Amino acid sequence: MMVRDDSTLNTTVGNVTFEPGARTNWHYHPGGQILLVTDGLGYYQEKGKPVRLMRKGEVITCPPDVEHWHGACADQSVTHIAMSINTQKGGAQWLRPVTDQDYYSLKTQ
Amino acid sequence: MMVRDDSTLNTTVGNVTFEPGARTNWHYHPGGQILLVTDGLGYYQEKGKPVRLMRKGEVITCPPDVEHWHGACADQSVTHIAMSINTQKGGAQWLRPVTDQDYYSLKTQ
Repeated sequence: MMVRDDSTLNTTVGNVTFEPGARTNWHYHPGGQILLVTDGLGYYQEKGKPVRLMRKGEVITCPPDVEHWHGACADQSVTHIAMSINTQKGGAQWLRPVTDQDYYSLKTQ
Repeated sequence: MMVRDDSTLNTTVGNVTFEPGARTNWHYHPGGQILLVTDGLGYYQEKGKPVRLMRKGEVITCPPDVEHWHGACADQSVTHIAMSINTQKGGAQWLRPVTDQDYYSLKTQ
């Protein structure tokens, strides 16, 4: 964790590495999220949309209340700086897992 | 600029490099600022406090409405990811320059 939440900044910043195959559950952030991909190769998907690759140097913005998940590719780790903003609107809401069946049948577009 | 301001994220993110000797004016952010130092060596100072070095890997949080400046050291560049948050409270307010006289007489503690 690089920046802990407080009531003046309303922001958390964390440096997160997912090992190959690791991923979050589906979740959403009431205040939105920004991901700065700093190394490796991973996946990012919003509900109802195709999965996309997260490559080093990319910036991903996820609007408030949009269900999504992110994680590593099956054979590579990924590292990103994850920023949760506008946290006065509430913390991350955690939902169902991304099953092995779903994860290992992913096709990026 | 990595993330442009909008009314859902209320955040800007920029990747900023200061060449040796370059620095901002004094300024403040009504919503606060977070700096993630990614390379080089620089200075950060809040009004009424000693100047501090900004080193690679450091995270600096600046509370809302606190006057400060940041920039490179005289003989080294510095690169940081600069996040302005809670921008619904207003954008950066720019003030007086850091004069050469002040800058070149800095002593870090």
